[in-house]
Amino acid sequence: MSIQGFDPRTGAAVGAPVAETGAAEVDAICARAAGASRLWARTPAAVRAAALESIAAAIDANAVELAALGDRETALGLPRLSGEIKRTTNQLRLFADVLREGSYVEATLDAANPASVPPCPELRRMLQPIGPVAVFAASNFPFAFSVAGGDTASALAAGCSVIVKAHEAHPQTARATAAVVAQALADAGAPAGVFDIVHGVAAGARLVGHPAVKAAGFTGSTRGGRALFDLANARPAPIPFYGELGSINPVLVLPHAAAERAQEIARGFAASLTLGVGQFCTNPGLLFVPVALVDELAAAVRQSGGGALLTQRMQESYRNGTQALAAVAERVASGADSDAAFGAMPQLFRVDLESFAADMERHVDECFGPAALVVAYRDVDGVLALLDRLPGTLTASVHATAADAPHALRAVDALRGIAGRVVYNAWPTGVAVAWGMQHGGPWPATTNPLHTSVGATAIRRWLVPVSFQDWPDALLPDELKDANPLRIPRRRDGVPGLR
Amino acid sequence: MSIQGFDPRTGAAVGAPVAETGAAEVDAICARAAGASRLWARTPAAVRAAALESIAAAIDANAVELAALGDRETALGLPRLSGEIKRTTNQLRLFADVLREGSYVEATLDAANPASVPPCPELRRMLQPIGPVAVFAASNFPFAFSVAGGDTASALAAGCSVIVKAHEAHPQTARATAAVVAQALADAGAPAGVFDIVHGVAAGARLVGHPAVKAAGFTGSTRGGRALFDLANARPAPIPFYGELGSINPVLVLPHAAAERAQEIARGFAASLTLGVGQFCTNPGLLFVPVALVDELAAAVRQSGGGALLTQRMQESYRNGTQALAAVAERVASGADSDAAFGAMPQLFRVDLESFAADMERHVDECFGPAALVVAYRDVDGVLALLDRLPGTLTASVHATAADAPHALRAVDALRGIAGRVVYNAWPTGVAVAWGMQHGGPWPATTNPLHTSVGATAIRRWLVPVSFQDWPDALLPDELKDANPLRIPRRRDGVPGLR
Repeated sequence: MSIQGFDPRTGAAVGAPVAETGAAEVDAICARAAGASRLWARTPAAVRAAALESIAAAIDANAVELAALGDRETALGLPRLSGEIKRTTNQLRLFADVLREGSYVEATLDAANPASVPPCPELRRMLQPIGPVAVFAASNFPFAFSVAGGDTASALAAGCSVIVKAHEAHPQTARATAAVVAQALADAGAPAGVFDIVHGVAAGARLVGHPAVKAAGFTGSTRGGRALFDLANARPAPIPFYGELGSINPVLVLPHAAAERAQEIARGFAASLTLGVGQFCTNPGLLFVPVALVDELAAAVRQSGGGALLTQRMQESYRNGTQALAAVAERVASGADSDAAFGAMPQLFRVDLESFAADMERHVDECFGPAALVVAYRDVDGVLALLDRLPGTLTASVHATAADAPHALRAVDALRGIAGRVVYNAWPTGVAVAWGMQHGGPWPATTNPLHTSVGATAIRRWLVPVSFQDWPDALLPDELKDANPLRIPRRRDGVPGLR
Repeated sequence: MSIQGFDPRTGAAVGAPVAETGAAEVDAICARAAGASRLWARTPAAVRAAALESIAAAIDANAVELAALGDRETALGLPRLSGEIKRTTNQLRLFADVLREGSYVEATLDAANPASVPPCPELRRMLQPIGPVAVFAASNFPFAFSVAGGDTASALAAGCSVIVKAHEAHPQTARATAAVVAQALADAGAPAGVFDIVHGVAAGARLVGHPAVKAAGFTGSTRGGRALFDLANARPAPIPFYGELGSINPVLVLPHAAAERAQEIARGFAASLTLGVGQFCTNPGLLFVPVALVDELAAAVRQSGGGALLTQRMQESYRNGTQALAAVAERVASGADSDAAFGAMPQLFRVDLESFAADMERHVDECFGPAALVVAYRDVDGVLALLDRLPGTLTASVHATAADAPHALRAVDALRGIAGRVVYNAWPTGVAVAWGMQHGGPWPATTNPLHTSVGATAIRRWLVPVSFQDWPDALLPDELKDANPLRIPRRRDGVPGLR
């Protein structure tokens, strides 16, 4: 069996098919990853940081070729893909900073206290790598959430070896990126086997079930993610599975904002809806707006344009999704169609709040692509009352003016319970790579709401704690030695500092 | 159906049977917990801290009665149970300290940076409570890992409502403790429904499947924990399940330590093995010692005494476990038997390293109670080579002298990969409640190796992150307001401090 990439603009094959990775080869890769993981875990954080920067530099040096290849397989366009590559390399560099800063190990030192109940010995605690990690590349970000994306960067940073399962939508881009990453790691002196790649759905499933693999990261569909999550949990020794699945990203436009900034909001919405042909996990799929704003939104969507979706399957799925929306809501606008082979057209559907509230479940399925459902309300209290019953989501946004503040406060109080990121007067697409980012949320946004797949703390997913009790200083890891030779932030006897 | 507690010394019933909680009542309790959770989550941390201290004070005030009742149902003895109650109330007070200190919310503030790729808006991130938590009380700690134990204390601290599933071994103690906790919370002004208790296996399973319950904590057997873990993952919307299951707690005695401190080590071992009739999850069940030390260990075990196990079922299970050990190893010593109804006798089994290494799986099943397997070695390298293949465990211990340092270093390097806590020249029983404690480990020690069920960071299990993007200061939670009104540690633009 082999995997063939296609040009979404023409439907033509791109390059030669890539062979699926067989079971024996997956097993051999896992065995190498296990050996490499032991060495990589003991490689000083500063050396791992330098290796991440080597990967970043190598990808930047190959950015033109990688973007061109990615564009043939995804049709996302060179400007977007060049930007995404820059985002990817900045992400690798952020984790190099995180390693050098050192807080990520959560070093904690408690002196012995024989008087406490129970008596406390000397305890020194830190986080350490969990072991080999399987990373499932996403379709919609051929770089930033793929071979060298956030999961790979954070897991390598943590000291874990990484085995990527390439996405079927861009096998050539995956292979080319993997070659750059592997060479950069070898040049940086990282152990052989610390990074590898497999192709094919069966190879991915085998990774999740393999005893050597200790955790997995996934970005993709709810169906695919759930199947792998179930595999991970059914193992004789279950492993953490971090899946980012589906998200409808509700947006609430409050009355004063709608009245004062109707056109600006409508334009912003249409731009966010159609960015990347709507193929973002943070795409705004559900809007609550005053009845009067609907026409303005429809006008903006009519002026928008479609484009090529990533795969034929996504095109079919978008067709099914918009048909499902048409069955429960009125189509009030569509943008210009696309003549691409896998083309899709922006569409806006409308339903009244009363109908929506009467049967919410039928209205909140994610439709991946440039389609949204606008819920028209007359009574803002009616909207506020149902926000906390919306399904879990990566983001939720509120558009407001100062005069909307009392409603905005009620809205944020409800929305922080269902969303990982709550946005004020902006659109959810665009996920910054920063210390304070949260890219996660309650099911079905993710399989595990305690973590993020973007931002500095994404590294926490691949780290497990260990305490050393009463060990001689010379036998402790540097992070926990008495003199704090790495000068990292530590908590000592309960007090954070640099001691 | 009802649940009857028994006196392990006599086998007689203790008090009246306690009714199992029916499905409708479980549902009503969950609905109340969901409502209370919303209020409790918005209760200032300082107020939650005071409520935890109220619980601690109320339990201390009822310590004599609670210990007496606990002793009737567990036969663990008044000195141990009084100490355990003190540990329980100290644990509640530790979480009050954790709340006031404020690091636990991991407040993180990033200024906007339009120049970065992708552009970074203003982001303010913190942790917030996950929602109602189901807590499964353990058999072997009627206080510290039960109704008002570490899971309850940390979840209430986090701002979650708690529903405890009482353990069948001590229903009266559970009920009495729950009454004290509920009254103390009410007196402290906590919302009604923030804490409740259910009885019965069916009620526990219903909790784990209930849509209102958002996470669960468990301490108990591998079989029971796995069944509940599977239920939690099979839900339409899965929830995190933190189970502490089985642990064999290997101990390695290195050659110089064995030669220099044979008697001290043997006595320490026998004391740790028989503490609480061996009913500790950190009980040392597997020792690697030089051949010459075996006789000393056997002599110490012969001088030890048995006692009453908690339940008849545990007595049967101990009988089965020691029979299984006898099938693969030689019984070299037993201590004095107990004449209690549910009595058990300490037992020591011995196998040579070569036999152990040849078929490790048959030798590493946990036998709950005062039994251990000693693996006699001639070649320390042979032991060091297999340490990293031992099953996941809560603790691993090394006894060494300065002359053993090279071997100790190799040992700790391997053991930190399989254990949550690595102990030097001490015994694993006794789990301090501190910032630096780690009580967890790879499967089957726990279902989730990223977390601890003891110590300050146990609170992290019940917290999920949320980021606020571009929100006006007045609409932000106090933890994230610009002026840092709560004066908590925060990371601002990547730098930890108090800004």
